[in-house]
Amino acid sequence: MSVEPTRADRFSFGLWTVGWTAQDPFGPATRPALDAVEAVHRLSDLGAYGVTFHDDDLFPFGSPDAERAGHIDRFKAALADTGLVVPMVTTNLFSHPVFKDGGFTSNDRSVRRFALRKVMRNLDLAAELGASTFVMWGGREGSESDAAKDVVAALERFREAVDTLAQYVVDQGYGLRFALEPKPNEPRGDILLPTVGHALAFISSLEHADMVGLNPEVGHEQMAGLNFVHGIAQAMWHQKLFHIDLNGQRGVKYDQDLVFGHGDLLNAFFLVDLLEHGPIGGGSAAVSSGYDGPRHFDYKPLRTENADGVWVSAAANMRTYLILKERAAAFRADPEVKEALAAARVPELAEPTLAPGESYADLLADKAAFEDYDADAAGAQGYNVVRLNQLAIDHVTGAR
Amino acid sequence: MSVEPTRADRFSFGLWTVGWTAQDPFGPATRPALDAVEAVHRLSDLGAYGVTFHDDDLFPFGSPDAERAGHIDRFKAALADTGLVVPMVTTNLFSHPVFKDGGFTSNDRSVRRFALRKVMRNLDLAAELGASTFVMWGGREGSESDAAKDVVAALERFREAVDTLAQYVVDQGYGLRFALEPKPNEPRGDILLPTVGHALAFISSLEHADMVGLNPEVGHEQMAGLNFVHGIAQAMWHQKLFHIDLNGQRGVKYDQDLVFGHGDLLNAFFLVDLLEHGPIGGGSAAVSSGYDGPRHFDYKPLRTENADGVWVSAAANMRTYLILKERAAAFRADPEVKEALAAARVPELAEPTLAPGESYADLLADKAAFEDYDADAAGAQGYNVVRLNQLAIDHVTGAR
Amino acid sequence: MSVEPTRADRFSFGLWTVGWTAQDPFGPATRPALDAVEAVHRLSDLGAYGVTFHDDDLFPFGSPDAERAGHIDRFKAALADTGLVVPMVTTNLFSHPVFKDGGFTSNDRSVRRFALRKVMRNLDLAAELGASTFVMWGGREGSESDAAKDVVAALERFREAVDTLAQYVVDQGYGLRFALEPKPNEPRGDILLPTVGHALAFISSLEHADMVGLNPEVGHEQMAGLNFVHGIAQAMWHQKLFHIDLNGQRGVKYDQDLVFGHGDLLNAFFLVDLLEHGPIGGGSAAVSSGYDGPRHFDYKPLRTENADGVWVSAAANMRTYLILKERAAAFRADPEVKEALAAARVPELAEPTLAPGESYADLLADKAAFEDYDADAAGAQGYNVVRLNQLAIDHVTGAR
Amino acid sequence: MSVEPTRADRFSFGLWTVGWTAQDPFGPATRPALDAVEAVHRLSDLGAYGVTFHDDDLFPFGSPDAERAGHIDRFKAALADTGLVVPMVTTNLFSHPVFKDGGFTSNDRSVRRFALRKVMRNLDLAAELGASTFVMWGGREGSESDAAKDVVAALERFREAVDTLAQYVVDQGYGLRFALEPKPNEPRGDILLPTVGHALAFISSLEHADMVGLNPEVGHEQMAGLNFVHGIAQAMWHQKLFHIDLNGQRGVKYDQDLVFGHGDLLNAFFLVDLLEHGPIGGGSAAVSSGYDGPRHFDYKPLRTENADGVWVSAAANMRTYLILKERAAAFRADPEVKEALAAARVPELAEPTLAPGESYADLLADKAAFEDYDADAAGAQGYNVVRLNQLAIDHVTGAR
Repeated sequence: MSVEPTRADRFSFGLWTVGWTAQDPFGPATRPALDAVEAVHRLSDLGAYGVTFHDDDLFPFGSPDAERAGHIDRFKAALADTGLVVPMVTTNLFSHPVFKDGGFTSNDRSVRRFALRKVMRNLDLAAELGASTFVMWGGREGSESDAAKDVVAALERFREAVDTLAQYVVDQGYGLRFALEPKPNEPRGDILLPTVGHALAFISSLEHADMVGLNPEVGHEQMAGLNFVHGIAQAMWHQKLFHIDLNGQRGVKYDQDLVFGHGDLLNAFFLVDLLEHGPIGGGSAAVSSGYDGPRHFDYKPLRTENADGVWVSAAANMRTYLILKERAAAFRADPEVKEALAAARVPELAEPTLAPGESYADLLADKAAFEDYDADAAGAQGYNVVRLNQLAIDHVTGAR
Repeated sequence: MSVEPTRADRFSFGLWTVGWTAQDPFGPATRPALDAVEAVHRLSDLGAYGVTFHDDDLFPFGSPDAERAGHIDRFKAALADTGLVVPMVTTNLFSHPVFKDGGFTSNDRSVRRFALRKVMRNLDLAAELGASTFVMWGGREGSESDAAKDVVAALERFREAVDTLAQYVVDQGYGLRFALEPKPNEPRGDILLPTVGHALAFISSLEHADMVGLNPEVGHEQMAGLNFVHGIAQAMWHQKLFHIDLNGQRGVKYDQDLVFGHGDLLNAFFLVDLLEHGPIGGGSAAVSSGYDGPRHFDYKPLRTENADGVWVSAAANMRTYLILKERAAAFRADPEVKEALAAARVPELAEPTLAPGESYADLLADKAAFEDYDADAAGAQGYNVVRLNQLAIDHVTGAR
Repeated sequence: MSVEPTRADRFSFGLWTVGWTAQDPFGPATRPALDAVEAVHRLSDLGAYGVTFHDDDLFPFGSPDAERAGHIDRFKAALADTGLVVPMVTTNLFSHPVFKDGGFTSNDRSVRRFALRKVMRNLDLAAELGASTFVMWGGREGSESDAAKDVVAALERFREAVDTLAQYVVDQGYGLRFALEPKPNEPRGDILLPTVGHALAFISSLEHADMVGLNPEVGHEQMAGLNFVHGIAQAMWHQKLFHIDLNGQRGVKYDQDLVFGHGDLLNAFFLVDLLEHGPIGGGSAAVSSGYDGPRHFDYKPLRTENADGVWVSAAANMRTYLILKERAAAFRADPEVKEALAAARVPELAEPTLAPGESYADLLADKAAFEDYDADAAGAQGYNVVRLNQLAIDHVTGAR
Repeated sequence: MSVEPTRADRFSFGLWTVGWTAQDPFGPATRPALDAVEAVHRLSDLGAYGVTFHDDDLFPFGSPDAERAGHIDRFKAALADTGLVVPMVTTNLFSHPVFKDGGFTSNDRSVRRFALRKVMRNLDLAAELGASTFVMWGGREGSESDAAKDVVAALERFREAVDTLAQYVVDQGYGLRFALEPKPNEPRGDILLPTVGHALAFISSLEHADMVGLNPEVGHEQMAGLNFVHGIAQAMWHQKLFHIDLNGQRGVKYDQDLVFGHGDLLNAFFLVDLLEHGPIGGGSAAVSSGYDGPRHFDYKPLRTENADGVWVSAAANMRTYLILKERAAAFRADPEVKEALAAARVPELAEPTLAPGESYADLLADKAAFEDYDADAAGAQGYNVVRLNQLAIDHVTGAR
């Protein structure tokens, strides 16, 4: 196995990642703007296979049609030159002041209508470029005061927006699926659909639920102190892991968008293991393998870095992923790990609690299950968790 | 309005709350055990209308049938003496060592079977006592190592358990609904169904989804830094707010179970406002009113308090709720608040984004929505959020 | 008592607060720049007594001398017109890209030298304007990688910088004291001197420790989940509360800079109580009264607000402070509170553990203290904490 | 290098760690009590060199003198049999109900006196056993209500206690130094001296400051979202790193006490690097080397583990430390790392900002420092942070 990225690894980057000019809440840009065409060529040279963007990344908000078309044409030419693909497109409903109270859920109805139109236009472009996934991050859908946002009404509007857009995609015959991206806060004090769970629940209420899944981001879940591997596993269980945003975060704080693996390294290892190999104990009948979509990096090169550092950091994302992929493969192949998994009874969880054909009445009749059960003995057993976790540490550190 | 609780306020308490003997991770009990009968009488005297319990609160784990029956009979007599009701019952699947790796999702299948049986037996008791809600908190369903728990398999087992139990309730003709209680962590490093959102999503996958809702707890969501009012609003939007656990928490840390309102007072105010009056801007067609179930306190009297302090703290929960209820009523009735809500365009969010009968094609044809829209002007408007929030502060503090 | 602010209340605001144009990590400004002269007049009209600034707030970074002087003169004229004072000045060592790796602790020595010069020049201005406090917030002094910043060396450089500047102030005869402002993170992944405690410890190592104290900010401590009232009490105990930044924060997340009291309202009440009345139980011989410096608001008007909302929010800070001041005065005056404090033994903590003149040898000889001490009886007493806290809730909500 | 622990590695464990019976807030013990003598032998067999304890770990609270002596004698014999040493002793002032409102800072003065006596008695034992460090963790020194604890008075009492005990040690001629252990919360809502910084500041105010340092714990700082490596570096800069508690924590939540490295693995690597090799860029004249005290593990074997798992987990702490030690040695020796450190200008931070003999007047006269300085050029440089951090990732994962 190699840690040099190839197209087969399906690594992709947002234009806004390598193109981030490093303006933050306390200071202006430290890097010049990056031309989209250069970004495409550089990413291609580094081994990525795909590039993604928000409409406003490619052409400024409000560009006249001809200018917009010019930007798109240059971009398409770069794609053609390099062979890079556009697996995903997304819409910026958060930067322009018009969206300061939200896009789909702004208190101002005219803003909501404008937002729908902006997305529809971008759906046309996504389809034109052959994207298969359309991400929606509702960064401004939220509030700082519980008095100023009726969350019930907001969810109703959110549903209206997604169902309307899904119908549009169906009617146009676009081969697009939507992927919602949850985040708990920042830039709003509280954002709607704050976690993987809230977004999954929301999707279940949609008319076009089948077309809508998730684009979870490592750091967004970790900003709420949640285990990203658990979140991804639940998304997979619901068959809703449509896309993924890989990056790094160092705990509950502002959104850091670090290089993948430069945050919680151990959780990153188990994430790669899950994506590459599927659930560790066999999963379920419906979900026993991993994720086969793009490995998409949504990170920001540190503000301390210059243009060279941008490309070093882009490469670092892929390298860390590939190192962890190697480690995960060795972990899964290690006979001692297999033995330790069995000793921890991990595969036993894939076994149904009721036997094939067993009803609850049968269970009630099974004295071994309750009346004669030795709960104290069962409580005295060891689950051998630490041994297994240490084997993972050994593999992550290359000590085995 | 009065801040003296009455039965009409529908306040209820868990036996384990006033009965907590204050053993914590760093020290043993500081208070003697409280007899359930005394608890019922004291709660009745304080103005509560209901009492709830885990099986193990009422009779020790593994009690022989006759002893179990004796405990239940004494309890029933106390209910009869006082008129208190049992609106909710729940099962302890987290204390006995047998559950140390979980109940429904223990890696050990025999434990899962035992857990199902323990719950079924307790469902019979809940029905016998006339409860309408059956809470399930999966406190041990989780892990500390991503190697040792196959989360996909675990969710599959969780679903198997809930669907089996729901079928049992249906077949027995019990008038019970289930309410899942999310929590992000503690006592496990990561708990399955960590937030309101994850639990709502899980429910959507159930065969008996209609019988299963939520029992969210203030502190549990706040332990993940989430806005509890937002979570409750989303639960209401899904029509899944079946029960509620009121208490206080001071931010992202261990589970404090403080007296209601003794944590985030402002969020508590907006919670009471939502429960009593419904969504602030009109909500949606399906959800325009508040919550009409029990106001259930799941708190722990501080370890510093003696028996007297236990009852002072029980009363404090109800008093704070009633004070905030008064404040919320005045807030809603205040003409200036109404005017400020309008100025913040809060009610406008209840208005659909598309006009009645309008299709996306119509929207596409509406140049006022996009081509002729003045985004800069719309972005320059003020949403008047702070004025509205300050009016809330004025009402919470009784300054208006 | 009135909730209309007057000069006697000593409220002050940073130019950068009302002047924030609302550019954030995900979007550009939503408000036009505010002229400093207008800010002075508006703040004066609202009842503030003081205004503060960073050098770069008043004149752009790198302004030629004549332009700089012009800006200063206009500002002075506005001060003269209104009677507003400048109690505090601070230097911007975080916005310009030159400071992207820090000011006093940049890895680049030339940057550190430039930073010292920038501060010295601003010290001259602070002295000229009659300020008594000079704040230093080291927002960029930190790192995102533990490999890239030698924290021991960084603290050594930080000390070198502060001692050099203090010597400069001494030699110039400026009547200035320094106030360090801690913050745990944002915009750096980890910031040096992350809490009130770390900054106090750092100060203790300075040559000019007597001239250096703290400027703690509500939200900064709460971003680390710390109790701000506890932090302020420790700063007071060290006699290092030189200045204070009042605002609001909703828990462990990005730096929100909400209006004062719009975050943790209960903690805000106890903060005002401490500032106005001193330690609740009598404190110590050296520290028995409150804080008599400016009540300085360091907040940001929400990005949703327009210019009108800016001034509404500025007024809201003062109004909330004054409401809580009224509530605190009533709390302290309430005979039942006094009785409850005694029942909770709060004043007893001000009493030394050893009697006057008692040595440890005397204590060793006191059998009542140990050999004959009934620890179980002492452990069974109640500390009556909840009753006292509920009285505070009653006062905050105006229910008493 | 080997990852098999030897006495030379100076690994030590608390009796309460391997001896934890796994009672937690939601369930009773899952493991039987562990005899101290067995603990000593097993730790010795695993390669530890030292064992530590609280008084109550070795003999029950309130043991009659003869029983206490018997426990001590058995323990001494085990030490003699194995050659294990007792580098540190500490006192339990947090378990017995008498301490429910604190030890040194209980509102009840008689409790404070009792606490002093309990510590003095334990100091005698520590000296008798040859310990050099005496740890004080004030786990119950705190509060849940800002009304019920006068923090100024509490700090005054804390100082009285520490100074009294230090005088006792001086007078007895015990070769003991004190090490305070900070923690932000749990079991109290807020604990006094919540972080490394607050404790360092407190120490600076002591009469016997020279005898008092810190015993920081990985998880305790991480519970406040703070960077443990930064905290340790500051403690080293103050020359106050007297002892250390190694364990693992997965972010801002309850105190997990995981195996060392099983939490934030990357931070654990940089911690080992700092302890073994000293500051990465050269540090300061006073602090250029690492830490040479015991590597003390303060962790809890997971509640899921049985007795075998206890010893597996004890070994896992040492193994992970040694793996990371190997990785750190290779990191420091790697020529490319050296080159990357230089490219990131890390060693330049050890260079004073003022030249030898340079005064601020000289700096003011240096036009190159300010008037002629090209801030834009300096701001455009790259600090090459990500390349360096990726080299660390490469080393941690054994990829180089």
